[in-house]
Formats: sequence, C-alpha cells, structure tokens
Amino acid sequence: MRATNLRIDAERLAATISETAGIGGTAKGGICRLALSDEDRRVRDWLVGAIRDAGLSLGIDDMGTIYAVRPGRDMAQPPVAFGSHLDTQPTGGKFDGVLGVLAGLEVMRTLNDVGIETERPLCLVNWTNEEGARFAPGMIASGVFAGEIDKAWALERTDRDGIRFGDALEAIGYRGAERAGERRFSAMVELHIEQGPILEQTGETIGIVTAAKGMIWSDGRVTGRESHAGSTPMALRRDALCAFAELTLGVERIARDEGLDGVATIGVAEIAPASRNTIPGEVRFTLEMRHPDLAALNRMDSVADSLAASIAKAREVEIAIDRIWRKDPVAFDATVASAARAAAEGLGYACRDMTSGAGHDACFVASVAPTAMVFVPSQNGISHNESEYTSPADCAAGANVLLHTVLALAG
Amino acid sequence: MRATNLRIDAERLAATISETAGIGGTAKGGICRLALSDEDRRVRDWLVGAIRDAGLSLGIDDMGTIYAVRPGRDMAQPPVAFGSHLDTQPTGGKFDGVLGVLAGLEVMRTLNDVGIETERPLCLVNWTNEEGARFAPGMIASGVFAGEIDKAWALERTDRDGIRFGDALEAIGYRGAERAGERRFSAMVELHIEQGPILEQTGETIGIVTAAKGMIWSDGRVTGRESHAGSTPMALRRDALCAFAELTLGVERIARDEGLDGVATIGVAEIAPASRNTIPGEVRFTLEMRHPDLAALNRMDSVADSLAASIAKAREVEIAIDRIWRKDPVAFDATVASAARAAAEGLGYACRDMTSGAGHDACFVASVAPTAMVFVPSQNGISHNESEYTSPADCAAGANVLLHTVLALAG
Repeated sequence: MRATNLRIDAERLAATISETAGIGGTAKGGICRLALSDEDRRVRDWLVGAIRDAGLSLGIDDMGTIYAVRPGRDMAQPPVAFGSHLDTQPTGGKFDGVLGVLAGLEVMRTLNDVGIETERPLCLVNWTNEEGARFAPGMIASGVFAGEIDKAWALERTDRDGIRFGDALEAIGYRGAERAGERRFSAMVELHIEQGPILEQTGETIGIVTAAKGMIWSDGRVTGRESHAGSTPMALRRDALCAFAELTLGVERIARDEGLDGVATIGVAEIAPASRNTIPGEVRFTLEMRHPDLAALNRMDSVADSLAASIAKAREVEIAIDRIWRKDPVAFDATVASAARAAAEGLGYACRDMTSGAGHDACFVASVAPTAMVFVPSQNGISHNESEYTSPADCAAGANVLLHTVLALAG
Repeated sequence: MRATNLRIDAERLAATISETAGIGGTAKGGICRLALSDEDRRVRDWLVGAIRDAGLSLGIDDMGTIYAVRPGRDMAQPPVAFGSHLDTQPTGGKFDGVLGVLAGLEVMRTLNDVGIETERPLCLVNWTNEEGARFAPGMIASGVFAGEIDKAWALERTDRDGIRFGDALEAIGYRGAERAGERRFSAMVELHIEQGPILEQTGETIGIVTAAKGMIWSDGRVTGRESHAGSTPMALRRDALCAFAELTLGVERIARDEGLDGVATIGVAEIAPASRNTIPGEVRFTLEMRHPDLAALNRMDSVADSLAASIAKAREVEIAIDRIWRKDPVAFDATVASAARAAAEGLGYACRDMTSGAGHDACFVASVAPTAMVFVPSQNGISHNESEYTSPADCAAGANVLLHTVLALAG
C-alpha cells in the first residue's frame, strides 16, 4: 500500500470516541471529566492500556502529561508530536480535546496496521488540565512544558474544595518522574473541533489554523446617577445603562472594523440598583477583545478607551476600563500549516485557512516547537456544552488530515 | 390682618418636621417609617395629639386614613381638603409625603392663630400606605377612597412576613369605623416635594402640577444565541446583549421624541449566562414609559414594539415585551391649579406649570374631587433616599402657597 492511499479506520475511531465517552458520561450525552478527577484517572488508565496494546513507549511527566512514542528510523531526531487533552468542562461535550487524542491514537494504530515506519519518531500527547474548569488557569501543563508557567506555582493551584493540583495529581497516580519541558518535539500538530460556526457556515471540512488570537480581558464600570424614573426628564439624566448600551454597540463596531478575525464581547453586566422605577446609577461589566494580529488587537483596545472617554463626556458619566489580563497572538508555524494544507488538499477535503479564537495547548507549545492546528466543523458552532457534535465523517476527515500531516512531517 | 398678608410660621413648620423626623429617624438623617409599623403608629399618635391641640375634629376611616376637620361657616358644603402621607420608604427622606401633612397642619394652626373662619370647612388628610414599600401597591388608601381599589382586596394584602394589611391596621389601633370613600371633598390640594430636578434646574420655587403622567410597565426578554466569545465571528453572532443595547438606546430616543414630559426607563436587566467569554444568549429586562398625554403614551408604547420587532429581525433574535401594568394619565383640575398659581404669583414666588412623574394620592382623589398639586424643589432631584432635602425656605414657600390656595378655594 502506498502511503498516500492510507486512511485511518473511521469505525475504530468512532468506537473509541464512543467507548471513552462512557467515562464521565452524562445523561444528556456529554462528558463531565474534570482534570485529575477519578474520571480523568479512569480515562488515563484506558489510554495507557491502549498505548501498551499499540506497542508504544509510555512517558509521564511531573505535570501528569502522558506521552506515547512510536519509534522512527532516526531516533536521534525529536519526534513529531500530536495530541490534545482528555479532560472536559463540567458539562462538556464528547469532542473538545478528546478528538485530538483519540485521532492521534488512531493514527498510531493505522500505521501499526500497515507497518509503516517513519523517519522521525512520533509522539502522541495527552496534556493535563487544558480546560481549567477545576484548576485555573487552563492549559497549565502545556504552559509549564513551554516554560511560560512556573511549575511550582502550577502545583500549588487549588480547586474550589482547596485541594492542591499537585496532591490531586499524586492521588490519581499520574505524577511522573520526567521533568515537564525536557522532552523536545520536531513539530506539533493539534487536531481539534472548531468550537465556532465558520466551517459549518462555509461548508468546508478542514480548517488550517495559522494563528491563535491574542486577547485582552478587562473589567469595566460605568457610574452615572441613580434617580427617579418618573420625575427625572430625559435631558437631565445620567443613565449608566444608556451609556453602557452605547459602549456595547461601539465595542461591537470596533471589532467589526477589524475584519473577520476581530471579536469583542461583553459577557457580564450587572446593573445597580436594579429597580424597575429607578434610573440605573451603575453598570459593572466585563469586556474581552481578541485578534490574531497584535497591532489590530492593540488598536481595538485603544479605540475602546477613546470611545469610553467620549461617551463619558457626552453623557456626564464616568467609565473606567481596567485591563486584568492579556495574551499576545500566536503565529503558528508556516511549514507545519503547509503540511496540513497539502494533506487536506491531497485528501480532497475543502479547506480554508483560519485563526483560532479559543486558547489551546498548541498555543503554548508553539513557543518551543514548530506548531499548527487542524480544525473540523462543530455543529451549530456549539462547544463547552453537552450537545457539542461533530459528525463521524468530519472526525475521520480530521484524523486523515492528521495522519498525512504527520507522515509528511515525520518523513 | 388681611388674609393676603397672612403667612405660615416657618419656624414652627421646621420644628414639626424636625420633631416628627425623630420617629423612625435613621443614622444617616432619613426616616424608616413603613406603613402600619410601630413607627407609623407613633407618628399617627403624634398627629392625633396635634389635631386635638388644634381643636380640629378627628375622623379615621376603615383604611386607617386620618381626617382633621376645621369647621367653616357653611357646614353643608364639603370641605376643601389638603394633605399627603406620613409613611416612608425603608431608607426614605424627611420630606416625601411628610411635608404635605405637616404643612397642612401648619395651615390649620396659622388660621387658628389669627382666628380666620372660612366659608367651607377645611380637612387635613394623612393617607395610609402611600409608599407601598411594606404593602404593595402604594396609594392603596386613596385608591380605596376613590373607589378604584377594592377595599376587601386591599385589606388582604400581605407584607413579606405574611402579615395582612387589615391585621396590621388593627394592631396599631387605627382601623376606624368610617367607611373609606364616604367623605366628600369640594377640592383637594396636595403639597409635595418634586422628587425630580426641574425646579432646581430652572431656579423656580413652586411647581403647579397640572397633570400626572400615565405609565406602562413591561417585562421584556431578548433571546439570542449563547456561543463562544473567541471562536464566533461578529457576523455570525446573535448577541442578546447587543440587541438589548440597541433597544435601550432606541427607547431613550422614543422618550426624547415625545418632548420634555416623555420618559422611558430600563431599570433592571439580567444577562445570561453571564460568563466573561460567552456571548450572552438572553437578557431579561424591565421597561417603563410615562407621559402625561394618553395619546403620546400609547404612541411611545407602540413605537417601542415596532422598534423591538425591527431589531429582532435585523439581529435574528427574539424580543418579547409583555405589558404587566398600566395607569392612564391624570389631568388635574384647572380651577384648583389656577387657584394655586394665583397664590404662588400673589406671594411673589417664581413658578411653572409642570407634570408629576411619580404617582401620588392626589392622582386617585382626582377622580372623585377637583384636585391639583403643588411642588417645591428637591435638592439634586433626589428622593426615596436618606439624603433627600428641601430647604426650610422652600418648605415654607410651599406651605404659604398651600395656605392661600386653600383660602381661595374655601372662600
């Protein structure tokens, strides 16, 4: 069999997705498999069994990340890595993270089936605690791997019951001896569901992710003057909600002005005093803006500031916007992305270049290895939800693109 | 002394305001005197004592409203009534309602001092539960008096502890034998603080209130689609908050388009799921619109509906606005208003005609007797607040206008 004709076993992939979905499976068809929980231990045990069955060599680092290496002809070269995460949101779906790991396993099994040996070794990875749902922040293990998060600090993170990350990791028996970050990759490819509506909308099957959006998170407050709704004429009001409404629409415009990749969202707004017949005196809100281009991101941020100042002046209110966190955009590796694009085209899948709006382990790994991502469609763009769905055909398509990208990169 | 030179005793008025403010007085200088509470009983006891001291004849009806009649030469004619309410908001001020009752008492005392006898009798009134803060709705006793609220229903209203209005009234010993509504007035004048910023802004001392705004209260809901803030492009969003923001600004415009008397307020808005990185899927809100002109009020209401429909269509969201309550505008009596205007002008006070944005007992009484109101300025337009303030000079001015209006009406 020529390598170009090789395809993964779509039924076997679907079966592993279905089988592991039972570990932490919810009544509504989703998964609750919080990082370092007993469910996480059980799915890790399952994965370790599958790794052993596939004859791969197992490694576990001191952040609990699992590595499964398939030898190459040239073991002096670092492996081509691929994978994602098996932990989920509390009411998560069956595909977020899971697809990347199980498709990676399927790639290994497929190569075993036909006995193909690659030049470089291959490495399947299951990153610990991508979601951050139990221990904040998310992507903590890939962050430590990349040297961007301090390991000692990471091990001290606690969940809402006060349990330390390090203790939870010990408790499930997955604190390995390997120092997180000492392993090298020649490249990394993460297959993931899009978690957005673009591919579904355009009818394409594969997204080649060339960058991940940077983001700025802020907390804001509009302070107006609370007064009587019946006896205060419109012209004498300093209505915090009206000022906030103007800001909301302005922020929406700012994002639209930065092309398809600019997004801005006000997700939380709390109005005080919240009385039917009192003009709102205060609105506290969150604002987040994302863009894959650093200059555009910074421009959005500063335009939002000017807008807030001009609304505040015109409406005689105060508007404060405090930045609480930022992450610069990540440009993925052009060579890895090209390999993925060539794989998708070679397989005949309609594909498009796109950016990732969400954060992924690949965003951290990108700082220590040439990295890119591959997206497959999410039905209705829904994710972090038990109704999250990607069709078996799209899962298989993503796994085939992963297979051929890995083959191209591993030689 | 000629009647036109007569003035109330400003110091005595200030002293009674100060004395009664001690009953339920708060640390921040306000009053907490909920209807039918022990504090309400104590201030009623004080009032009854003052009524007896002034030689007035006391009446109490079966809603607890207190009447104090000063005889006229022609006792066959119904009295000219004036008054307001002594109950307050939980963190109320010293003037809302209180001024109207105590200035009325001061009018009685002043006429006693100089021995003036009027043609018609006079009647000071303290309406029960104007605020509605303990027992909803407010203005319940004047509503029963006017035959617009059913008495049996009113007596069954309960506070948050489940205590019945009727039982609370019995408990403080103020359930009278007189049937509420059987008393007739030849006219009614209510002096009240403006509770808004207009007189302060224009520098005028007296407002002649020719109408009270009607109002429509609604509960609304915008339903969009909750989705990921990072991976959902602006063009594919159905952001409930952005749609709500557009509605908020539209509603503000609708009120502005209806002149100085039109007001519209969104006082409450609750956003779901209220997560920093999730596009809001739902906003529940309240909307209230007021106008003294019925046609204008109905126009505001229907334009808001059209606006909601057009926003819903353009943004692919659903917007539902359910009317939960309405009250038509009240036109006050031109003769009573003219008497008040002539009194203010005769006393040399700068005055203006205006409308009341808030509801008052006078709004109900207007349906059974020729009625109007007199307003004095509220500092910073603030009311329903412990910092509510009207200067002693303005209180005295209002009381003098009340005095001369009553004299003109009573002959």
